[in-house]
Amino acid sequence: MTPPRGNARPRGAGSRAPRAPRAPRRAELSELGGDQVEGRQAVLEMLSVGRRTVRKIMMAENQDPSPLLDQIEERAARMRVPVETVPHARLDANARTESPQGVIAQARPIEPVSLQELCAPSKKGVAPFVLVAAGITDPRNLGALLRSAECAGVSGVVMPRHRSARLSPTVTKTAAGAIEHLAFAVVGGIPAALSQMSELGVWTVGLAGEATTSLYDLDLGDGPVALVVGSEDKGLAPLVRRRCDAVVSIPQHGSLPSLNVGVAGAVAAFEVARQRNQRPH
Amino acid sequence: MTPPRGNARPRGAGSRAPRAPRAPRRAELSELGGDQVEGRQAVLEMLSVGRRTVRKIMMAENQDPSPLLDQIEERAARMRVPVETVPHARLDANARTESPQGVIAQARPIEPVSLQELCAPSKKGVAPFVLVAAGITDPRNLGALLRSAECAGVSGVVMPRHRSARLSPTVTKTAAGAIEHLAFAVVGGIPAALSQMSELGVWTVGLAGEATTSLYDLDLGDGPVALVVGSEDKGLAPLVRRRCDAVVSIPQHGSLPSLNVGVAGAVAAFEVARQRNQRPH
Repeated sequence: MTPPRGNARPRGAGSRAPRAPRAPRRAELSELGGDQVEGRQAVLEMLSVGRRTVRKIMMAENQDPSPLLDQIEERAARMRVPVETVPHARLDANARTESPQGVIAQARPIEPVSLQELCAPSKKGVAPFVLVAAGITDPRNLGALLRSAECAGVSGVVMPRHRSARLSPTVTKTAAGAIEHLAFAVVGGIPAALSQMSELGVWTVGLAGEATTSLYDLDLGDGPVALVVGSEDKGLAPLVRRRCDAVVSIPQHGSLPSLNVGVAGAVAAFEVARQRNQRPH
Repeated sequence: MTPPRGNARPRGAGSRAPRAPRAPRRAELSELGGDQVEGRQAVLEMLSVGRRTVRKIMMAENQDPSPLLDQIEERAARMRVPVETVPHARLDANARTESPQGVIAQARPIEPVSLQELCAPSKKGVAPFVLVAAGITDPRNLGALLRSAECAGVSGVVMPRHRSARLSPTVTKTAAGAIEHLAFAVVGGIPAALSQMSELGVWTVGLAGEATTSLYDLDLGDGPVALVVGSEDKGLAPLVRRRCDAVVSIPQHGSLPSLNVGVAGAVAAFEVARQRNQRPH
């Protein structure tokens, strides 16, 4: 392929180079983020799981005794991760969340996997249970949903490249270590990803407040399944909704117009888990 | 009854007066709080429900157009609630949450009801569905749980007088208007309240991560039920646990040690709702 002449950055503003399907670039391997991890639970879980290299840990000095901080120090020592004790003010200056709970870690970012990998059965032969986070923009909502989803048995998460929260320090902290256990795929568009997942044999279930089918009337069995959760403001985009194999709602019994998106996702994920685990073991 | 001599406040420090069952004092009528309401959804819901007097509303000037703000202004005008437009800095100076979303209201506090009232069937004859918030201390967790519980059909909430978050502006805002629909009872001790609820015919179900009975193996029917959720750190206190008619856990399928308390309460509340609403309508 001949590079465009006289311009080292062909897709810069004003470029008219035709848009070719592009190969993954090195930079994209870290597009998910997750490199700065704050909060005791999130840092401890990262060290315990040991899925990625932790470069260094910064801890505030003179903190009250805490079993979690002790465990972080022990594990860091065993793994030879340097721990720097710094004044509170310096820790806070480095923090990107509101309350880092006295600890900040720098680590290798989370590297995405392909959609195919995400939709493959586990090594133990368990069918995949995927969460499609189709445009959740509030980092606390996304973090809370990742935590709940992991507890419900979700193994992989699909996130759109644009118009979504990344694995920022706030997401990572709120997820309380869940990102260390989950696989992530980043996709250009959710509708195309849903079609591809259907081809891979995954049953895609969208969550929409106005759907007339109840979540509880699904009969999921224990096959591959993906739960699709839309954005806080607009829910599922029309095309996303159309590409789902089923669209369901959580029956509401109160007066408020709607559940928080993270909570709705959690309630649905645990119902999927209940249906998948109903058979005698 | 003869008042103790020489001491107008018999239960002051050092008093040895015997502890008599005391009548509700006027001050207790506002011990729940809820008088300052911040956030668009919470303020709009308070105006829409109209359960309590709204004294005044403060709005930041020069905000982007918003249907919610328009609705707040319309309703306030109709209800003759004074609306004061103020500079952002002044609104923020009056705010007690991190992001009041440009609107703060002052209202009559939420007044608690008795446990008996809380445990009575609704006017439509629906059996009570009660949430016992047994020591949730983080205001965001409590607020989120109140919102989810209302959506699941919870009609009343029991809160302990001590060691619990009150209906602070953060709770109120996170609850997104749920407190306008719920009845609240404040009790001196949760164990005694659970015994009293059992006597009133309410089946009390405690939520505890380590319980061996699954939430999904309950058979609740559609009778009076109370879901008991413990504190973030310690879960259900031993005596609270012993007073529950059943103690159940939500089956976990991931690697993380636990769900957030607000999410666990939401998942359990919706499962209770599912079981209560299973019969043909």
